[in-house]
Amino acid sequence: MAKQAKRTSRDIRTANRYEVLRQIIAASPTSRQELAAATGLSLATVATLVGELLDLGMLTEVGFEDSAGGRPRGLVAVNASGGALIGVDIAETYVRVELFDLALNVLARAAEDMRPGESRPEQVVGHVAAAVGSVVAQAGVEGARVLGVGVSVPGQVDRDTGISEYAPNWDWHDVPLLDLLAEHIAYPLHLDNPLRACAVAELWFGAARGRGDAVVVNLGTGVGAGLALGGGLHRGVSNSAGEWGHTTLVLDGRPCHCGNHGCVETYVGAPGIMRNLRESSPQSPLLHPDDQTATIDALSRGVAAGDPVALQVVRDTARYLGASIADLINLLNPEVVVLSSWVAAALGEPLLREVREAVARHALRRPLAATEIVLSPIPTDPVCLGAATFALEGALNAVGQKPVGGRAVPRRTAL
Amino acid sequence: MAKQAKRTSRDIRTANRYEVLRQIIAASPTSRQELAAATGLSLATVATLVGELLDLGMLTEVGFEDSAGGRPRGLVAVNASGGALIGVDIAETYVRVELFDLALNVLARAAEDMRPGESRPEQVVGHVAAAVGSVVAQAGVEGARVLGVGVSVPGQVDRDTGISEYAPNWDWHDVPLLDLLAEHIAYPLHLDNPLRACAVAELWFGAARGRGDAVVVNLGTGVGAGLALGGGLHRGVSNSAGEWGHTTLVLDGRPCHCGNHGCVETYVGAPGIMRNLRESSPQSPLLHPDDQTATIDALSRGVAAGDPVALQVVRDTARYLGASIADLINLLNPEVVVLSSWVAAALGEPLLREVREAVARHALRRPLAATEIVLSPIPTDPVCLGAATFALEGALNAVGQKPVGGRAVPRRTAL
Repeated sequence: MAKQAKRTSRDIRTANRYEVLRQIIAASPTSRQELAAATGLSLATVATLVGELLDLGMLTEVGFEDSAGGRPRGLVAVNASGGALIGVDIAETYVRVELFDLALNVLARAAEDMRPGESRPEQVVGHVAAAVGSVVAQAGVEGARVLGVGVSVPGQVDRDTGISEYAPNWDWHDVPLLDLLAEHIAYPLHLDNPLRACAVAELWFGAARGRGDAVVVNLGTGVGAGLALGGGLHRGVSNSAGEWGHTTLVLDGRPCHCGNHGCVETYVGAPGIMRNLRESSPQSPLLHPDDQTATIDALSRGVAAGDPVALQVVRDTARYLGASIADLINLLNPEVVVLSSWVAAALGEPLLREVREAVARHALRRPLAATEIVLSPIPTDPVCLGAATFALEGALNAVGQKPVGGRAVPRRTAL
Repeated sequence: MAKQAKRTSRDIRTANRYEVLRQIIAASPTSRQELAAATGLSLATVATLVGELLDLGMLTEVGFEDSAGGRPRGLVAVNASGGALIGVDIAETYVRVELFDLALNVLARAAEDMRPGESRPEQVVGHVAAAVGSVVAQAGVEGARVLGVGVSVPGQVDRDTGISEYAPNWDWHDVPLLDLLAEHIAYPLHLDNPLRACAVAELWFGAARGRGDAVVVNLGTGVGAGLALGGGLHRGVSNSAGEWGHTTLVLDGRPCHCGNHGCVETYVGAPGIMRNLRESSPQSPLLHPDDQTATIDALSRGVAAGDPVALQVVRDTARYLGASIADLINLLNPEVVVLSSWVAAALGEPLLREVREAVARHALRRPLAATEIVLSPIPTDPVCLGAATFALEGALNAVGQKPVGGRAVPRRTAL
């Protein structure tokens, strides 16, 4: 109980700090009065939080606005050049790295392809180090200005120890990933997974911003659901919440690499969609047996061209998706469900339409009426953006510890 | 966003107030210093909250304890006789009402059976009014001391308007239940459903007390999951979260009264368990075709006697339950899963053992390792206790409005 209450009490301060910065990023310049009105916090609380962010160098004072008859109000804005943030998206087939300013504008990008079978931790770490070096060089920022690097890796991670506990597609078990990365990268490192990266990106910058409860459904090679409940990320007691891909949709159904059968992922992850295609039309030229990306792209083009096989596969996939998104709606009663990641982006509106219809057939009336289902509005890689946001949150959590410019969060030498 | 932050800010005060009273109910008498240590709140915050509860008449000062060398510390305890709370459990086949003192000790009980077909709202309201009258008379409390009545009714409810939106077993749609009850009952009324009543009972007095995230799995005629996340009830945006009974376990499986197919409830609710029995042993004398309670009791006795049919039915049911509880564990990563309600109580330890084994076959390693599965430790009707807790929360929310003794929460005349 003590643990619980303490966490809650610290969480609220952290959440307020995030809330104020989120609002400033969304609408700069702004006054403390406007921030208080927009966030519902007291003017005194806002003034304290703004003061902390000014001390950190994350905000700047940018003048005054007249208030009707009153004293002129001080305006603040994000100090975009006050620091840089790096987001790393490690996926099964590529590593993408983006460098952002403090307003989360992309300043530089780098990507590395990973060849099939190139999945040893040292190989992955080498690609990440190269791409991080590349974005820092491109952006021309001094190293000292990089406030942190957020790293997303698929599967289950222990963010406190920086260990990738289980990455199913590579069969990684207990890989000390941050420890390995720290040998090449001298900035503060923050590890998490793509589910939570996408959810935090939607929470700060996307469709979950300012919404009550949101579920960010991640459709890629693997699938999962980032849960933004009560305005913050729901992580669960051991940071593994969101494994919706490994909930049972068809008892005794398709075998899953997790050891179970009938998992949602086996029907709606990219390999599951390929199987849906193979089962409905084994000889289809849309099928690229060893290439998920090419197959999903071919389906996308097929749907646009009215190809009946492509339309049927999207409808079949939407039927599975509809039943399992309805499960999330019935269980969690969210205000918004966001479809994110590369499969959702590739299949886009046609998939969304079919999913909405299928969900309406499965969900209960009351939670259905309260829920909107949308595609992610984030135009760039949401995983990189979310990972960079973790680095931003890490820098914010260092408030009161040490001013930025030096290093906000100590390098993880203890790993 | 404004809405969100405002809610969070008020929620934290309410949560702290609950936390302090919970701790005092668990260990009275106690000092402000002990409360601060146990809850993680500051001594100043605790002193303010204790002062409010003293003003409300919910606590009393009960003397001093010596502190090692320091000033004697004031001790407070629950003022058990400071008010009474009533919990109403409306179920498909009965109405149970319990009257509690402020320490949530039962002072009086009443129950009314409902005959098959006796499901019109006026009939149900008549039974509730009679039972409430009975407990007040038995306990001999003055009406003025009743701080509130919590009412649990199955299905989906709108607690703000007091409307039972949908009660599937009676086919109720938009019944203004609190309005009807207010014609007979002059105390403040609070409506919710058994899922949330059981969850709040576990959160205040049971297995979820002091735990991080908890899922209270309700096994009765209907089934569902009360979600206690981050120390509070997760209600969702329209108070309908927890409809785990209407998540899909077997796509295209057994038809469900909700209109869907393969819902968890059709396999593990009491009628689903009867069907499991009928499918495995159609002629079994354990089966009482029109009597759920008698059938579940017969199964319970059969298991105790080593009857192979009963053992098989419990194993089959546990297999469905195991897969669908594993879904909750994978998705939410809770610290504890509590099996509650009458079917769980009747089948008890043998069901628990089978469920634990089945969950271990289905859940992912990391969330599984963080989760404990237990039977509800609450010895009385958890729905009555939880409903009374809603009345207690209602009275606490009236802090700063009006001292209790009169009426803490206005009667819902506006319905």
